[in-house]
Amino acid sequence: MKRVCIIGCGAIGSLYAAHLARVAEVWALVRREDHARALNQEELRVSGKHSFSVSLKATTTAKELPRDFDLGIVATKATQVEEAIADAGGHFNNGAVISAQNGLGSEEIIAAHTGGQVIRGTTFMSGTRHSDTHVQYELDTATWLGPFEPRETPMSVVQEAANLIIAGDLKAEALADARPAQWSKLIFNASVNGVSALTGLPHSPHFAAEKQFDDLGHLLHELIAEGKQVAAAAGVKLHEDPWAMNKIGAMTNHPTSMLYDVRHQLPTEVDFLSGAIAREAERLGVSAPLHTTVYRLIRGKEAAWKFQEENRPVVVQGRAGG
Amino acid sequence: MKRVCIIGCGAIGSLYAAHLARVAEVWALVRREDHARALNQEELRVSGKHSFSVSLKATTTAKELPRDFDLGIVATKATQVEEAIADAGGHFNNGAVISAQNGLGSEEIIAAHTGGQVIRGTTFMSGTRHSDTHVQYELDTATWLGPFEPRETPMSVVQEAANLIIAGDLKAEALADARPAQWSKLIFNASVNGVSALTGLPHSPHFAAEKQFDDLGHLLHELIAEGKQVAAAAGVKLHEDPWAMNKIGAMTNHPTSMLYDVRHQLPTEVDFLSGAIAREAERLGVSAPLHTTVYRLIRGKEAAWKFQEENRPVVVQGRAGG
Repeated sequence: MKRVCIIGCGAIGSLYAAHLARVAEVWALVRREDHARALNQEELRVSGKHSFSVSLKATTTAKELPRDFDLGIVATKATQVEEAIADAGGHFNNGAVISAQNGLGSEEIIAAHTGGQVIRGTTFMSGTRHSDTHVQYELDTATWLGPFEPRETPMSVVQEAANLIIAGDLKAEALADARPAQWSKLIFNASVNGVSALTGLPHSPHFAAEKQFDDLGHLLHELIAEGKQVAAAAGVKLHEDPWAMNKIGAMTNHPTSMLYDVRHQLPTEVDFLSGAIAREAERLGVSAPLHTTVYRLIRGKEAAWKFQEENRPVVVQGRAGG
Repeated sequence: MKRVCIIGCGAIGSLYAAHLARVAEVWALVRREDHARALNQEELRVSGKHSFSVSLKATTTAKELPRDFDLGIVATKATQVEEAIADAGGHFNNGAVISAQNGLGSEEIIAAHTGGQVIRGTTFMSGTRHSDTHVQYELDTATWLGPFEPRETPMSVVQEAANLIIAGDLKAEALADARPAQWSKLIFNASVNGVSALTGLPHSPHFAAEKQFDDLGHLLHELIAEGKQVAAAAGVKLHEDPWAMNKIGAMTNHPTSMLYDVRHQLPTEVDFLSGAIAREAERLGVSAPLHTTVYRLIRGKEAAWKFQEENRPVVVQGRAGG
């Protein structure tokens, strides 16, 4: 039996953990003690598209993991990959690790911390996390897997990982080049999340409106076109059209993940989204003024939370009532 | 004695009204009944750089104004000019009207509602409004006045208006072309207000920082450069360097007016700032991607307030407690 470690058990990590625990020995590496305790004491329940419960092992400390894993799936937010993989990376030296983050750049961080194979992963699978031990499976879209080309990951390793995910009854596809899928999602996510976080609008009809001069659909269209140009300069042909993805998203009225972060003043993934496109453009010597603008504005927004904190007026304590 | 009407008595309008009331018959046209009542019952007090109190007449209705004025000064927000001048414009058919708004476009609105002369006004004068009848005079910078060129306003009319303001002990300068001053302030205001409203940062050191790739000073510099290109295409040579203005502003930590509007979900002046630059660029056939982006993002922000309102979950009323 293969041994698998899921690093980070939000909605996506919980879906991987539960499904793979049916066909492999699964460990979950999580941040909160009470999260690990709940997973060790209760079964992890899946509802929605699938319906079952399953046992697995969980810990908050890489030291408590078995020495060697065949497969790891990093399912944290992109901003948490470094912290999550730093101690755990050595446990995959004889195996492989899949990145399941939004955007670009997580594979490089993972590769810096493990001697094992690295696999580019992109997923549109979605779920709702009702508790530490209950996740609802919603969109049953495939996970696309492919080699991390700087490490020349063999296709046999990618195929084996895909087969294991499929055996667990999730959808997966091994691709000779995963970048077209990753960049399609990157461009869509960077454009929509950036505009959403800056305006406060969820995925909404505004993002597809192109009638008036000030309609946001123009901006989304231009951000996507600019992203495509950077992809082309990087030699990547897109797997899907991000504008078509946006038109579908615009009908959902769902808040974007970056809007959630901004509302709760949490660090955003902008470094891995518009920031990644802006930096790639600079590296390749092409122009990306709009993603660079969105990147700097959202970094400015993050700075504002800190600036307000530091510059908060001093409240002089009155003495009334002691 | 000349007869003058100040339309809108915020900080700037109050400063004009009080100073001119010392050398002219001054009427104030305001929106709130209690504002008009206070101005009719009490003297208007100026503190700070100048110190005096003065009587004037006030009303909320254009119908109650005397038939003819020699001079009007429109000192409302740019978003309120249309509403403010629509009924009052005829009272200046034999006189002149000065626009004192931020940005571009107010003169055209005023000209559509009066047969009188129209004067482009730009001011950096500033004050703090402590109450309806007390304003503190702070920055005693000049008001720059010049012809509204589509109406071929004679310089003698511009000079006469400047002289009256100077007689009231404020600073004013009559310029053969007021657009260099107006565009300098426009580009500064559009760039800084837009970035401030989108990030939540006040005028702050971030706006002048240019060390890191994600520093906002790069974006401010690029917005200002783009604004200068549109000015050049419009045949306008700037009066002052907006980047120098920004570097001074960045030391103040003052909230911008658009940040105030955004925090209170009030309509912003973006149509007269980045929106005006974006539309001018389109009219002139030059490119202004950054101001167009800022314009659409802030219009999206305004749309978000309404969208959240409309899509607020329906609260089902419980019957407990009757």
